Amino acid sequence: MKAEIISIGTELLLGEIIDTNSAYIASRLPALGIDVYYQHTVGDNLSRAIEVLRRARDNNDVVITTGGLGPTEDDLTREAIAAVLGEDVHLDPELAEGLRQRSLRQGTPFLERTLKQAWLIPSARPITNARGSAPGWWVERDGKVIIAMPGPPGEMTRMWEEEVAPELLKRSDGAVLVTRTLKTTGMGEPLVDETLSQLLKSNNPSIGIYARPDGVHVRMGAKAPTQDEARRLIDEMEVRIRELLGIAVWGTDNETFMSTVGEMLAQRGLTLAVMESCTGGLLSDEITNVPGSSRYFRGGIVSYATEVKELMGVDPAVIARHGVISNETAAAMAAAVRDRLLADIGIGITGVAGPESQEGKPVGEVHIAIDGGGKLADQSLTFTFGQGREQIKRRAATQATMLLRRALLASEGAAS
Amino acid sequence: MKAEIISIGTELLLGEIIDTNSAYIASRLPALGIDVYYQHTVGDNLSRAIEVLRRARDNNDVVITTGGLGPTEDDLTREAIAAVLGEDVHLDPELAEGLRQRSLRQGTPFLERTLKQAWLIPSARPITNARGSAPGWWVERDGKVIIAMPGPPGEMTRMWEEEVAPELLKRSDGAVLVTRTLKTTGMGEPLVDETLSQLLKSNNPSIGIYARPDGVHVRMGAKAPTQDEARRLIDEMEVRIRELLGIAVWGTDNETFMSTVGEMLAQRGLTLAVMESCTGGLLSDEITNVPGSSRYFRGGIVSYATEVKELMGVDPAVIARHGVISNETAAAMAAAVRDRLLADIGIGITGVAGPESQEGKPVGEVHIAIDGGGKLADQSLTFTFGQGREQIKRRAATQATMLLRRALLASEGAAS
Repeated sequence: MKAEIISIGTELLLGEIIDTNSAYIASRLPALGIDVYYQHTVGDNLSRAIEVLRRARDNNDVVITTGGLGPTEDDLTREAIAAVLGEDVHLDPELAEGLRQRSLRQGTPFLERTLKQAWLIPSARPITNARGSAPGWWVERDGKVIIAMPGPPGEMTRMWEEEVAPELLKRSDGAVLVTRTLKTTGMGEPLVDETLSQLLKSNNPSIGIYARPDGVHVRMGAKAPTQDEARRLIDEMEVRIRELLGIAVWGTDNETFMSTVGEMLAQRGLTLAVMESCTGGLLSDEITNVPGSSRYFRGGIVSYATEVKELMGVDPAVIARHGVISNETAAAMAAAVRDRLLADIGIGITGVAGPESQEGKPVGEVHIAIDGGGKLADQSLTFTFGQGREQIKRRAATQATMLLRRALLASEGAAS
Repeated sequence: MKAEIISIGTELLLGEIIDTNSAYIASRLPALGIDVYYQHTVGDNLSRAIEVLRRARDNNDVVITTGGLGPTEDDLTREAIAAVLGEDVHLDPELAEGLRQRSLRQGTPFLERTLKQAWLIPSARPITNARGSAPGWWVERDGKVIIAMPGPPGEMTRMWEEEVAPELLKRSDGAVLVTRTLKTTGMGEPLVDETLSQLLKSNNPSIGIYARPDGVHVRMGAKAPTQDEARRLIDEMEVRIRELLGIAVWGTDNETFMSTVGEMLAQRGLTLAVMESCTGGLLSDEITNVPGSSRYFRGGIVSYATEVKELMGVDPAVIARHGVISNETAAAMAAAVRDRLLADIGIGITGVAGPESQEGKPVGEVHIAIDGGGKLADQSLTFTFGQGREQIKRRAATQATMLLRRALLASEGAAS
């Protein structure tokens, strides 16, 4: 089966919000045996929505739209589908009653314009929306399907998982695609490409190489009649790739630096605490985004004001001598938080996130220190990264995690 | 001028990464007087890339592509453009030398395959890439322009700002579009729509209404020969909208809850400290994403382990009596962090981010407390929000900010 994905909304076309829906849907189609070759975005404009919808329906078995199902005059997806099929909309009494009950339950006034969300056409049946007022449309005629879902990602994903994906799975006939990504560090994209050159001609699994903020990713995609067979093809290819890339591979698929490092801490029964200033809580936030992080993460201190560093055990003499933005202060922060929060390992981060320089140090200068408390070797790292505030924070948090990984790997090597 | 945006990459088509480039470019075109009606995404497939490129070039003055300029066999954008124009690629000696110098500087081995990035066609001139190895292509023939930029957002945005946007601005002839967004809270989308119904027929400025996680947004877009004239149209419309929506409007454009609340704190000379457990540092992270937050933010404690709460001054008797997940513990956290970090106001957040329930409390139950230290009235809030871990964290941080805003507004009202 072939599908196209269409996102509808002027706010997308003007770049005011980022389209995450298309990626979500696209990532779920291969496992259903559905190929997607194009995605499109179009504004809240009836004639252009009709044009894109018609072309997509002509060339595909399934067309999936998100957006344009709200109650306002700008919400035109229903009108566009009706026009493509040459059918008239009518008010569905049951859907209308559901909308009335919904506003009763929520204690909000019922507005006539909401009734647009109770429209149907003869070829459409409504798709339940568990998280919002607008039902989706499942439109089927002449062997072609149009699936219209609401734009808010929370509503769309729930509708997809509970209503749309199970229905599409029933109709799936062709081969399924299974993908797996190997994540590497320490090798550039051209070197990975050259190292794997003998494998790159493979069609099944196919292999793609992509540069990412956390290193170069190698994606394998295998097609087979069943998920098991596809997975077997991937398993075989993974062995060959790992032979060529060696320890450059640090993780697969949804693994992050943070989750792999967390697993290393948990397996060795070590606990971690962090004191951060320029990252402002981001490192703690990323650590605690990993489910199960409470096994190894004691907690953190965001020492934004210099005085807070001292209140939390950093020696004022170190700050006076070396400045807040220094390796020495980072090391003192790591030691202090390890001590204060009774952890095995402490991380300290201090730097200049901007927009203004500090102590004559440029925006983007960051110092990271790890206090291993005798269980790991102490580490430190200084770098300058000249981009915006949030990128500096993110880069610093990633570097801190990479430094901790290196310390853990080194002590493993030393122990073995 | 009319433009289309094309993103090229199988990893986009499979939903493995989210396309932020299209939104970035789209958001910058209106101010250059360039209209965009469609965006497309296509995989690393030569014939499909050619098809989409050709159609876009036929229907527009400018086509802007991102992705597919890397050194690997999959990187096909150059080949696709050459095919659309019927021109042959050649190796540009100067670009090739630049690539060699680059790998010398970086101390990485020079690989022959990298030379693909030194290709040109007769109608193309290279666009400098200050952050990566692949130059862009500025392709001009028969009065039409194709601009090809690399996919990594850091490289693309720098190239856009320094090379592409200034060049496009020179050619801009038509009317410019200026947009402004008013952000509201406390009113649903249908009610905003109905309240503004008399204005919605306006064509210039046009008005769009969008439901967002932080409330309903009202976007105005005005076209005029100059930015000043467009801005004047927007100013007039803003007055009329504000009259109708009143205090529901809390901010505009890039203002966030966090930045508006921060400004309120700064203006009243109040300082803030937070102790968070289930949000794990996210609240501190969001507070410190606002430039200038050091004026009012003292710092935070991420008390992930219960023992850390007690080490940081939360009375163990309160936890023993009411449990960690309780209003009382949230209030004790707020008081303790206000006291420890010498701030005027303290916020405490405790809850269950999941995946497992805790103390018999369900995943998603969150308690937030504000200790106003006599300067604001104390506040507390409990809610249960049944979605994933990261959404629960984000929702809790947003709710905490909204609670602080309410406390600040209330004390203003009391003072006036």
